[in-house]
Amino acid sequence: MKLAAARWVVLGSVSLLATCGCLTHRPGPASSTTSGPGADAASLSNAWRILSGKRFVDLTHAFSPDTPVWAGFGPAIFAPARDPATGQPYTVAKDGFHTTQYTLVGQYGTHVDPPAHFDPKGRTLDQLPIQDMILPLVVFDMTPLLRGDPNHAWSVADLLAWEQRNGRVPSGAFAALRTDMSKDWERDPERFKRQPFPAWSPEAIEFLYKQRGIVANGHESMDTDATPDLKSETWLLHHGHWQVEVMANLDQVPETGALIVVAWPKPKDGLGFPARAFAILP
Amino acid sequence: MKLAAARWVVLGSVSLLATCGCLTHRPGPASSTTSGPGADAASLSNAWRILSGKRFVDLTHAFSPDTPVWAGFGPAIFAPARDPATGQPYTVAKDGFHTTQYTLVGQYGTHVDPPAHFDPKGRTLDQLPIQDMILPLVVFDMTPLLRGDPNHAWSVADLLAWEQRNGRVPSGAFAALRTDMSKDWERDPERFKRQPFPAWSPEAIEFLYKQRGIVANGHESMDTDATPDLKSETWLLHHGHWQVEVMANLDQVPETGALIVVAWPKPKDGLGFPARAFAILP
Repeated sequence: MKLAAARWVVLGSVSLLATCGCLTHRPGPASSTTSGPGADAASLSNAWRILSGKRFVDLTHAFSPDTPVWAGFGPAIFAPARDPATGQPYTVAKDGFHTTQYTLVGQYGTHVDPPAHFDPKGRTLDQLPIQDMILPLVVFDMTPLLRGDPNHAWSVADLLAWEQRNGRVPSGAFAALRTDMSKDWERDPERFKRQPFPAWSPEAIEFLYKQRGIVANGHESMDTDATPDLKSETWLLHHGHWQVEVMANLDQVPETGALIVVAWPKPKDGLGFPARAFAILP
Repeated sequence: MKLAAARWVVLGSVSLLATCGCLTHRPGPASSTTSGPGADAASLSNAWRILSGKRFVDLTHAFSPDTPVWAGFGPAIFAPARDPATGQPYTVAKDGFHTTQYTLVGQYGTHVDPPAHFDPKGRTLDQLPIQDMILPLVVFDMTPLLRGDPNHAWSVADLLAWEQRNGRVPSGAFAALRTDMSKDWERDPERFKRQPFPAWSPEAIEFLYKQRGIVANGHESMDTDATPDLKSETWLLHHGHWQVEVMANLDQVPETGALIVVAWPKPKDGLGFPARAFAILP
């Protein structure tokens, strides 16, 4: 165990680390001699030191051909990759490697929906900024409300009551709706696909984006809305926002104080793709 | 401009923020009243405040059916997703949404190779820890050496000379090899696929994992090795390590001091998949 103390002086967004014995007890990025003031590099070092001491929670389901999916898309195909010259699958014994050819619709498993999924003028996956891939995470735990109404829609009143307990939703946050539906993903896939199901109300989605300035939203279900007209999803994608569907393990994340990292591959003009989301706990 | 001071006390991996006026001038994760000491939440808040003020650089190419790929795999297919009931593509005009069905080998575009790609007993993509998705990043700029030898293999001697200039490679780092081959990705895809090409020497790969304790490596080319026997890739995958191939924009990242975030979707038993990698600059 090691005891150290540091003094920080913060000037706008530039943090100057005056003294920091604390940075020497763990590996960190090597100090840079070429990329600006050493103090600034130390600041990023310190961010990494904090992050690397935290617990991470995966918010992503593993997907397979057996994954619950909307019948209008259908299951993925996982096939051994084959040598086009011979038609034979690559094998470790014969070729030293093996791999898989995937056929799937972008909205498969835990995935991201960009605006262009609904809005032809909206941004595609490759146009969404990487700066938004790390965000403060708030989790609205709707499970107590589901005892009385298993298909409750999270309302503005629910949100304001949540803020009474947890403080205002911070601008720039990722807002996730916890329903514990994700537990049915493996346990009861048919039940996971049920209609109706607990979801966002359109009013709460619009309030969160317009009045609280969230960057994105996420939920455990395959759709944003419990209603057939998809009002919440239509509104948010037509207003330039994006969302993550089929999230897992929100029951392991506190309602406030965590960060989310959410990243996805970069298909050109992508309209949806499997993503990876994980939380870093406070 | 705001001036504030904070005192930190570090006990092992637990950081206690004693005073921190600095946390009030930007949005951050709301303070938690349910998830442990507020001081610990403030610590993660501070990490986010540092990160969110930094420049992010995307290290990922956008991929499409025209993406350069090994002839033994062949191009991806991007097809409109169709309604299985009618065989017709979904359209925004008719259905309110549209999306894409992808067919591709996991090793496509900027991608991750897990140990099981070569080693049947090795870990698959869904088994690699999310804790390793944020790492200190070191970049070995090999471009000055390529003037004399365009297919140079990065050697242990090159690495030791790099350490003379930049300090020791930190344990737990992600080590990336910069060759500027990535500039050919769009400019000259045939040249991008050339053999031979600048790459890692097997000795440098083994040294980095065994003597420096790196977690993963990455490069701009489609393969780790310039040689047909794939000695470097075979060694690292058979020793439980993973790598990222076909990286972009390493010329925009300093040799030390940055962090890398590298994440990939979670195909069950995955042997390779498109990934997202980005750097956070000091």
